[in-house]
Amino acid sequence: RVNGDRLWDSLMDMAKIGPGIAGGNNRQTLTDADAEGRSLFKKWCDAAGMTMGVDKMGTMFATRPGTDPDALPVYVGSHLDTQPTGGKYDGVLGVLAALEVVRSMNDLGIRTKHPIVVTNWANEEGARFAPAMLASGVFAGALSLDYAYGRRDPEGKTYGDELKRIGWLGDEEVGARKMHAYFEYHIEQGPILEAEEKQIGVVTHCQGLWWLEFTLTGKEAHTGSTPMNMRVNAGLAMSRIVEMVQAVAMENQPGAVGGVGQVFFSPNSRNVLPGKVVFTVDIRTPDLAKLNAMRAKIEAEAAKICEAIGVGCSVEAVGHFDPVTFDPVLVDRVRNAAERLGYSHMNIISGAGHDACWTAKVAPTTMIMCPCVDGLSHNEAEEISKDWAAAGCDVLFHAVIETAEI
Amino acid sequence: RVNGDRLWDSLMDMAKIGPGIAGGNNRQTLTDADAEGRSLFKKWCDAAGMTMGVDKMGTMFATRPGTDPDALPVYVGSHLDTQPTGGKYDGVLGVLAALEVVRSMNDLGIRTKHPIVVTNWANEEGARFAPAMLASGVFAGALSLDYAYGRRDPEGKTYGDELKRIGWLGDEEVGARKMHAYFEYHIEQGPILEAEEKQIGVVTHCQGLWWLEFTLTGKEAHTGSTPMNMRVNAGLAMSRIVEMVQAVAMENQPGAVGGVGQVFFSPNSRNVLPGKVVFTVDIRTPDLAKLNAMRAKIEAEAAKICEAIGVGCSVEAVGHFDPVTFDPVLVDRVRNAAERLGYSHMNIISGAGHDACWTAKVAPTTMIMCPCVDGLSHNEAEEISKDWAAAGCDVLFHAVIETAEI
Ligand SMILES: NC(=O)NCCC(=O)O
Ligand SMILES: NC(=O)NCCC(=O)O
Repeated sequence: RVNGDRLWDSLMDMAKIGPGIAGGNNRQTLTDADAEGRSLFKKWCDAAGMTMGVDKMGTMFATRPGTDPDALPVYVGSHLDTQPTGGKYDGVLGVLAALEVVRSMNDLGIRTKHPIVVTNWANEEGARFAPAMLASGVFAGALSLDYAYGRRDPEGKTYGDELKRIGWLGDEEVGARKMHAYFEYHIEQGPILEAEEKQIGVVTHCQGLWWLEFTLTGKEAHTGSTPMNMRVNAGLAMSRIVEMVQAVAMENQPGAVGGVGQVFFSPNSRNVLPGKVVFTVDIRTPDLAKLNAMRAKIEAEAAKICEAIGVGCSVEAVGHFDPVTFDPVLVDRVRNAAERLGYSHMNIISGAGHDACWTAKVAPTTMIMCPCVDGLSHNEAEEISKDWAAAGCDVLFHAVIETAEI
Repeated sequence: RVNGDRLWDSLMDMAKIGPGIAGGNNRQTLTDADAEGRSLFKKWCDAAGMTMGVDKMGTMFATRPGTDPDALPVYVGSHLDTQPTGGKYDGVLGVLAALEVVRSMNDLGIRTKHPIVVTNWANEEGARFAPAMLASGVFAGALSLDYAYGRRDPEGKTYGDELKRIGWLGDEEVGARKMHAYFEYHIEQGPILEAEEKQIGVVTHCQGLWWLEFTLTGKEAHTGSTPMNMRVNAGLAMSRIVEMVQAVAMENQPGAVGGVGQVFFSPNSRNVLPGKVVFTVDIRTPDLAKLNAMRAKIEAEAAKICEAIGVGCSVEAVGHFDPVTFDPVLVDRVRNAAERLGYSHMNIISGAGHDACWTAKVAPTTMIMCPCVDGLSHNEAEEISKDWAAAGCDVLFHAVIETAEI
């Protein structure tokens, strides 16, 4: 078994970097806080005897050598970046649990045939630079490096410039590494494991996603002196689209979600009807046909809504991945490890996207989940218990050792 | 008649300060651009032989002495601040037309019994600091100086600090000045005069207004892993309120408007359901009973909408004035001047709020309006013709002279 106290202490130490305002974290991608978090992680990896490689997307790969010089590494990781008002565990748990796996191997003198690479993927959250899972998307060949470098934050700064600025632009070609397998341990971010009183989620699939960025063009006009029948109100169109997305998600129950998290009114002045509204619809379901049908319906209905009030409507897909089925061999290995260790477990579909969704394209991949309180995530109040954290890390430890071969 | 070319040239010169991105202006209250605009205006006033006083709200009063030392001044003015994407005429026309009245008096050697005070009210727009017409509201005793100083822009900077910073904190007590009368000339900001092909709007009333700032509290949660039935989606509640406000305005036709210009989602991340949404509803009508009934209905319906989805709802009135009836004697004087000068005219109700709405509480007040193209305002494309500008200024000139007495 791993050292649950040490894992927890590391989680609490990392949480001191980029503190939030309500007990969580604001350690967004390529900020100074991200750079500081990376340095602490590197220091820990160095101390555990690993050597660090960094690729051109800024993803960090800390290698513990294997005994067979020809064996491909087993990659284990997640991400250290957070939402603007994020929790202490989302992503961080997966990276520091991977580190704990190596630390425990060191404690126990375990050598594996395959090297172990503890991985911190860059820009998983996609909060500052859309889409989410950007670095792993480039790694898997789904997105180009140029595209990624050109992504802009709301202030207009690019990913490429910010990566250089914080000093974590590496020299490795992105995706050059080949993987024997990839494991990712993550909090569930949903309510199922807690409700079912299971310690371990054996993740069999991940929902697919579309992020549809709408740009609505109305007519900026005075809220007081513009008669109702002369308005071309982009904000009203936006509101109708939010309601329609809710309806489309409800029609597709069970097993689908849809919502809007980000909205920009322009000029965003109390007495000006917005001339422009930009917002992003997020829809997900594990069913590929349903996912694409939801997208098509939302785009068609939005066009009708806008046309009815004379608002211009354009849509850009700024994030997408198809539903994922994880590697059955690795999934079984996770389930068996949980069983062997005596932890209660159940199969689960990941509601959130993860870097594992992209690595699944290029390597046998699976995930492990632990419960989180009230299913709450992307919220500073995100919480897990030390025991939950440790149980999943034990399972990860066993599944990784079995895969990396003693 | 006034010098229409000189008036137009001054408008174009002022428009060079704080240029917008599409031909209009961004010269928001208490910004560096506002300070620059004030300096140019002071230079012009100095050159026209006036002396400048500034009050503790930053309102500028340029005095042309009268012949009777005991006579109260006739105030003439409007505002030089703009919306973030504002036009070149909204407010500016009224200030520079007042200056043109004095310049024309100087040209023609006209002396008046009552002094003339050309006035630039601070923070009329309310775009950066709500409410609108803040300085005239304090002047009229409707708002306190402390309240005004504490108003914050979206970055959290206060009115008081910013006024000091730009160097336009004056020493006069706000409201200490007594007025013989107040005139304000403004573009209509609506479509009526142009549609009716009238050169002059004789403004008899102004609509009343409520700005209701809603703070909705939902539960920040992951857009992907949070099932539909566990969401407490503040953005969905906001959307339903926007639609409801539209319906309430439509029910109250004719003679009422309602809309939302400003929305802040928090944390405003694509994959986080908003935990907090702050937005402002703007409702107006010239009918006091209707205005207050609309407010009551909107608050009651919003509470129901929020309750149905478990979202917390609080409302603060951040702007308000009752409908205004302008001084009948001054209104007649404006109408007669238009008639005498041979300009087509009609009675009109101001759709927008103006500093005149507050001075009407403390002095005989009226307004004059000119048409604007397509009724468009609070838009960089706001446009008027030189002839329209000059016609209203002629009427202002005559009405002011009659009131200030030769
Ligand atoms: N795990 C996680 O929250 N990832 C962010 C990408 C997503 O929105 O699913
Ligand atoms: N005239 C004008 O646009 N004033 C701003 C206050 C308002 O919203 O009516």
